Amino acid sequence: MADFQLHPQLAKDCVVIKDLSLCRLLLMNDKNYPWCILVPMRVGKKDIYELTDAEQKQLITESSRLSQVMMDLFCDKETKGKKMNVAALGNMVPQLHIHHIVRQEGDACWPKPVWGQVPAVLYGDAEAQALMDSIRVAL
Amino acid sequence: MADFQLHPQLAKDCVVIKDLSLCRLLLMNDKNYPWCILVPMRVGKKDIYELTDAEQKQLITESSRLSQVMMDLFCDKETKGKKMNVAALGNMVPQLHIHHIVRQEGDACWPKPVWGQVPAVLYGDAEAQALMDSIRVAL
Repeated sequence: MADFQLHPQLAKDCVVIKDLSLCRLLLMNDKNYPWCILVPMRVGKKDIYELTDAEQKQLITESSRLSQVMMDLFCDKETKGKKMNVAALGNMVPQLHIHHIVRQEGDACWPKPVWGQVPAVLYGDAEAQALMDSIRVAL
Repeated sequence: MADFQLHPQLAKDCVVIKDLSLCRLLLMNDKNYPWCILVPMRVGKKDIYELTDAEQKQLITESSRLSQVMMDLFCDKETKGKKMNVAALGNMVPQLHIHHIVRQEGDACWPKPVWGQVPAVLYGDAEAQALMDSIRVAL
């Protein structure tokens, strides 16, 4: 872990919320959707299957805890279509990272996947801070 | 598990390769990419975090084994850009299902995510059968 460094593209697009046991937790700077990213703090990994068994199990534990927290915090209970999108793509940014996005009917590109659809809408500083605090406290 | 039934849309788009311990393994009928889907055989689940801890761990075990097998079988070792895409989206089909897609530089929509990009190219019967056999044997 000493040599782990966040990929520059992720560092540019996101802000760090906190380090969990395995993953660095990021907030994507795009208020179209509540969108967090988990980055396992391991050097040179591109795909989930390259992690050790123990790391894979820790990853799904951190991923599911985050998913639950994000749905509790951000999912409108009245909305009919509502869904976590959890995805490890990485075709452009090779460092293993797992997207976690709360989707709701009527969001910026529902029901399509979010990638490459609409330009990011940046958070104000205070807004991002409040959001990150709420996630940090709930985790 | 007695009441588990595959969602009609998945049944229409895919063929069943085999049942694993937790998941039904499907081949997406689209030869643009080697594309498999894991469907946990549990009733009424939409998101990974809704599975039990034990089921989540079994899911990541099956997912990573499948990923490894698909990369070994289908990934051109000479290609520079190559990547598993692993994703639980489900905005259109609410039954929990996890896509596993081998991506390579130069495939039908590299480096974009595959969803909604290009029409599916269907396999011939013998072609699909050979592919499914190779996965079944390797797993």
